[in-house]
Amino acid sequence: MREIITSRDNQKVKRIAKLLTSKRYRTTEHAFVAEGARLCEELVLSGIAIRELYLTKEAEERYRSETSLLSIQAEECFYITEELAERISDTGTPQGIFAVCAMLDHSPSVVIPQQGGSYVLLEHVQDPGNVGTILRTAQAFGLQGAWLTSSADIYSPKVLRASMGGIFRLPIVLEEDFASATQRLKEKVSVYAAALTPEAHPVSRSLFKKGGAIMIGNEGAGLSEKRIQDCTGAVIIPMAGGAESLNASIAAGILLWEMSQGKSVDKE
Amino acid sequence: MREIITSRDNQKVKRIAKLLTSKRYRTTEHAFVAEGARLCEELVLSGIAIRELYLTKEAEERYRSETSLLSIQAEECFYITEELAERISDTGTPQGIFAVCAMLDHSPSVVIPQQGGSYVLLEHVQDPGNVGTILRTAQAFGLQGAWLTSSADIYSPKVLRASMGGIFRLPIVLEEDFASATQRLKEKVSVYAAALTPEAHPVSRSLFKKGGAIMIGNEGAGLSEKRIQDCTGAVIIPMAGGAESLNASIAAGILLWEMSQGKSVDKE
Repeated sequence: MREIITSRDNQKVKRIAKLLTSKRYRTTEHAFVAEGARLCEELVLSGIAIRELYLTKEAEERYRSETSLLSIQAEECFYITEELAERISDTGTPQGIFAVCAMLDHSPSVVIPQQGGSYVLLEHVQDPGNVGTILRTAQAFGLQGAWLTSSADIYSPKVLRASMGGIFRLPIVLEEDFASATQRLKEKVSVYAAALTPEAHPVSRSLFKKGGAIMIGNEGAGLSEKRIQDCTGAVIIPMAGGAESLNASIAAGILLWEMSQGKSVDKE
Repeated sequence: MREIITSRDNQKVKRIAKLLTSKRYRTTEHAFVAEGARLCEELVLSGIAIRELYLTKEAEERYRSETSLLSIQAEECFYITEELAERISDTGTPQGIFAVCAMLDHSPSVVIPQQGGSYVLLEHVQDPGNVGTILRTAQAFGLQGAWLTSSADIYSPKVLRASMGGIFRLPIVLEEDFASATQRLKEKVSVYAAALTPEAHPVSRSLFKKGGAIMIGNEGAGLSEKRIQDCTGAVIIPMAGGAESLNASIAAGILLWEMSQGKSVDKE
């Protein structure tokens, strides 16, 4: 018989709530929570072990195929009440499905730059929606890896949700500083800063015939002068007169798309 | 001396709050509210008349250049207290600047399809962030017009904010149905549905050598069968194995980018 948790003072429930809300606690525990049927299913499809699964009975009814798959894969399963699900959920309309997992490896060894590879680097990208969406796009376009520094926590519920599980499949390195990563990348591919410098190239897939890397900075302030100088060059997306700028994830999406199309340039 | 409004029962303040929250009231009054320094500045830069301007004294201090420009342009100006600004604001961190304007013209005559033109059509795009971001992108890439049906209200605060004023400059037609717009467009350009049909073309700028139009459907359900059949064809964005899909605004951004690059194909 599976245990039913009904008390808000239950230690396990308190722990999920804390994992959802506190970056510091996630780091200490080296764990995170994925919420919702689709995201939890992505865990399984990506081969990530589920330590604990928490379900409402309503969720089990409603998401029968997903929850039966999850229940088989999870080391431990618990029922929680709808009231508890609402209490701990990060969303306004909780589905009543929570999976606790160990964080993945994000050490520098996770991505070894290769000639012809495609990569993205995010520095000080603050909005969780932007970070998640960019990582989702990077995974969709088959990039080989991402580097993040000083950006929104990839295990925050908002980033996980926006990434649609993209972070489970894309190798991601979390670093204090990009100096060494940029150096190592430049030995294999050209690294372009997304930056409005006077010398910036209008983005073109021919820049990425031999793969490449794109570095994206803060939504408001962009990349620092120093960081731009470390790159091979800068790229911009040409726009019509009068337009101020593009949304940060849209700009990133177009740059990643152009990079992903680079290798087909000669065939066109 | 400029009037200072301090009471939450003031009729003008009640009216702004209602214009911000109720689509029905906006429609009846044929008016909308732009909130924040940047968006209000966009009104002026786009040549839109400001009927009433509401400012906190703090905003006047803080956004001196924007508010002095706005005060000159506005027909009437009022001060409001910080407390009232917080009360009516749609954001968590109000800047204390609100402009009441008449809605623009969105009748079919606003966009007359032309050979070589570029257009976008949104049907049942529900998320205000997506609608705003897509319209911002359309304007940035110099499209000649947009058609919307059954989508998030372009005058809702969230759409306005995400559009960054894009809706003030891009001609937009609001219609009940796309049948006649599609017909008129097809006489001048090819109309492509963003849809995962078996016959869909992988998106390519060469499809848009002579301009074109892209039709985008609901975030979850996509476009209806009937609607897709009305189009010249369908386009998809090819993705790497394992990727589920792209975020709706990212997909739209890449399609609009490809369309905007169509006319330069021969030069490459």
